[in-house]
Amino acid sequence: MPRLKRVLIANRGEIAVRVLRAARDLGIETVAVYSTADRDARHVALADRAVHIGPPSASASYLRREALVHVAQASGCDSVHPGYGFLAEDADFARMVAAAGLTWVGPDPETITQMGDKARARALAARAGVPVVAGSDGILRDDDEAVQFGREHGYPLLLKASAGGGGKGMRVVHGEEELMPALALARQEASGAFGDDGMYVERYLSSVRHVEVQVMADHHGGVVSLGERDCSVQRRHQKLVEEAPAPCLTDSVRNNLSETAVRLAAAANYRGAGTVEYLLDTATGDFAFIEMNTRIQVEHPVTEEITGVDLVAWQLRVAGGERLDGIDSPVARGHAMEFRITAEDPTADFRPSPGRIARFDPPSGPGIRCDTHCYSGWTVSPYYDSLIAKLVVHGTDRDESIRRARRALDEFEIDGVATTLPFHRWLLDQPEFIDGTHTTSYLAERLARTHIQQEAMT
Amino acid sequence: MPRLKRVLIANRGEIAVRVLRAARDLGIETVAVYSTADRDARHVALADRAVHIGPPSASASYLRREALVHVAQASGCDSVHPGYGFLAEDADFARMVAAAGLTWVGPDPETITQMGDKARARALAARAGVPVVAGSDGILRDDDEAVQFGREHGYPLLLKASAGGGGKGMRVVHGEEELMPALALARQEASGAFGDDGMYVERYLSSVRHVEVQVMADHHGGVVSLGERDCSVQRRHQKLVEEAPAPCLTDSVRNNLSETAVRLAAAANYRGAGTVEYLLDTATGDFAFIEMNTRIQVEHPVTEEITGVDLVAWQLRVAGGERLDGIDSPVARGHAMEFRITAEDPTADFRPSPGRIARFDPPSGPGIRCDTHCYSGWTVSPYYDSLIAKLVVHGTDRDESIRRARRALDEFEIDGVATTLPFHRWLLDQPEFIDGTHTTSYLAERLARTHIQQEAMT
Repeated sequence: MPRLKRVLIANRGEIAVRVLRAARDLGIETVAVYSTADRDARHVALADRAVHIGPPSASASYLRREALVHVAQASGCDSVHPGYGFLAEDADFARMVAAAGLTWVGPDPETITQMGDKARARALAARAGVPVVAGSDGILRDDDEAVQFGREHGYPLLLKASAGGGGKGMRVVHGEEELMPALALARQEASGAFGDDGMYVERYLSSVRHVEVQVMADHHGGVVSLGERDCSVQRRHQKLVEEAPAPCLTDSVRNNLSETAVRLAAAANYRGAGTVEYLLDTATGDFAFIEMNTRIQVEHPVTEEITGVDLVAWQLRVAGGERLDGIDSPVARGHAMEFRITAEDPTADFRPSPGRIARFDPPSGPGIRCDTHCYSGWTVSPYYDSLIAKLVVHGTDRDESIRRARRALDEFEIDGVATTLPFHRWLLDQPEFIDGTHTTSYLAERLARTHIQQEAMT
Repeated sequence: MPRLKRVLIANRGEIAVRVLRAARDLGIETVAVYSTADRDARHVALADRAVHIGPPSASASYLRREALVHVAQASGCDSVHPGYGFLAEDADFARMVAAAGLTWVGPDPETITQMGDKARARALAARAGVPVVAGSDGILRDDDEAVQFGREHGYPLLLKASAGGGGKGMRVVHGEEELMPALALARQEASGAFGDDGMYVERYLSSVRHVEVQVMADHHGGVVSLGERDCSVQRRHQKLVEEAPAPCLTDSVRNNLSETAVRLAAAANYRGAGTVEYLLDTATGDFAFIEMNTRIQVEHPVTEEITGVDLVAWQLRVAGGERLDGIDSPVARGHAMEFRITAEDPTADFRPSPGRIARFDPPSGPGIRCDTHCYSGWTVSPYYDSLIAKLVVHGTDRDESIRRARRALDEFEIDGVATTLPFHRWLLDQPEFIDGTHTTSYLAERLARTHIQQEAMT
């Protein structure tokens, strides 16, 4: 398993730039791919070589498995990094990459398949002694199975697309009368987003926090936890703000979360970077496994800031056969938060706002990191997700992080498209967020009072 | 000594923005001043309030002591932060600020005077048991005293302007025949730069490193060391690159440097941020005190990156009476380097290159911080120093810092003015710098081979 020499980055936007930087730091050459819409993209400019892969539509460019493998081979790559989104959790693509003699920067295809199947993942977790949420035994055979599950376990329920991610095809159902219409809508959404309408049902826990543990595993049996993140600020199951360490946890719960995640990764014979997601009741300290993501996550930088460990570089290093020497007991320092800045209008129900960014002027200074692919003059395309920047702040404690975040958001100037900057600035003044007592349902309840939202964010 | 509520920032450029960010993080209101040339400056845009202070010439704007004190009073400030340069080490200004009932963010005027007088500072250091370099007993009474010093102590000698800083009025003299012309030139330069031609002479140590210790002292007797920095990459006594921790030091020498610096600061009844500068022979570990700077230094961010301590915020906090709780034993993590990016042409003997920056696109990502006041469209004025950005990189070790620095410098795009970006990129490939074995004379010797300089940097 030789060290990597040249990697194909099968992605675009912020994560393509992020992978490119890690590869550059390690002396690994980079090959980028781009659609016609991304001709002037930063990841194209920064890569050692860039190959045009198709028209703007993702299905005709960034999702073309065969073409991507072909480009990797033709350009002399020895490896493929999928980023997040697109084909990052596509076991078929991972298999094709391996079959072409290339190194897949991620876990084995079989691990991706296993964790992508919510029921198999849950069964594995249960066998590894990880608490799980009650759920259906795999993909629903028919709609009646959902009805039976509801009668047995009670409401609310959560419908989840089997192939899902990013909140697509997900529905909370509060009673049997809502079940059939919700199931139909969720299937329709999942079918549109993933080409697969397989559904899964589980108990829905409200008034909980979303806490997840970052793990990293090498090819020699080494597995480490890099600590937990809290991602409870969510809107329609999409994370908007993440932080590390998670607030309001006892050391005992914190250690238990990490140990459990390492146990699951070891049981799965995991390799590379992965995230074990939990729902957690801060009142009792009880937590339950919901899923494991077999890729780098959008919110990985908060872990990097407090541990000093470059997670993307370590993905490339363990894929090249290195052992996890030096990161087996990282010393966490301070507190970090990430704010996802998207081209969406928070005063208009987060409606996408693609267009040309006339001015892009991110903040800087102590404790500020801004991961972005944008620049003044860049056009945000309607073809892809609307993330334009990840503002990451780091302070000695949560209070300093919040104060630095306010300052950085005030400094951040983006002209030409509507963005979620005003939403984040508003959030930083909300008592529940300042206290760190918010749950995953906080934002929906708070935003329902729309007059506040519209007044405060404009 | 109440906490500060509103601070006047008596400076411009990068350091004005830096102080503004620290004040903002602490909830302290800010009042900026600006010359006509700085009407569109970032520090003006970011301050709560900005007051025009005069025409572009510094003597008619940023150096107007009475006007600055008047603005501070008229705008309801309770304190003045002088930044670095301009009036930062002007004891008269510090006295005027205090006399107006305002808090001076820095040490007592008497401490500034004492440390500004090289002979008094040296005498204090000697009394505190700090090794010193042989030098004249204060300002030269006449030229003949320099001749006598040379005959007694031998050559090379170093002539230093008593009021000096930043390499101005400084000359190395290799033999008695060079002494008189060098003294005349140095006096002329010092007179032009500081309005004071007082000169001082000391032994000149070549093949040494410039190592300095960051100290912070509160108003309750607390003094801490935040560790050392190495600033041996110098051109004409101006620092170009700084790093922390210093490479090639034993733990024993490292601790000895810090303990000595704390002893000196305690002996001086020091308050606020200060830097104790030494010349150090890495072969023997011997070091000698050269001077103490009674202000924040340009290179402070490398210490911030490895300790996680916000030095400028702590300047404001101790000035407001706080104790040094929480930073008394900072745990250093990793390695950091700062690259001073100036609007100078490294292929033309670092000739200043003022003008409009058509495009300013700094790097970002893991381990990268860029402190700057510049933006696309900003005009670098010929009236002030040519610093346009401080690129600060942070890695787990010196090797990772160097690799990240190469990546960040490659990404950094500045169009419209010549900059020292190519110089820094060139430096990062020089074996002596990579090994960390360079001394303060390294760069002059290396740059003397001009064909290499010109070929590699264009």
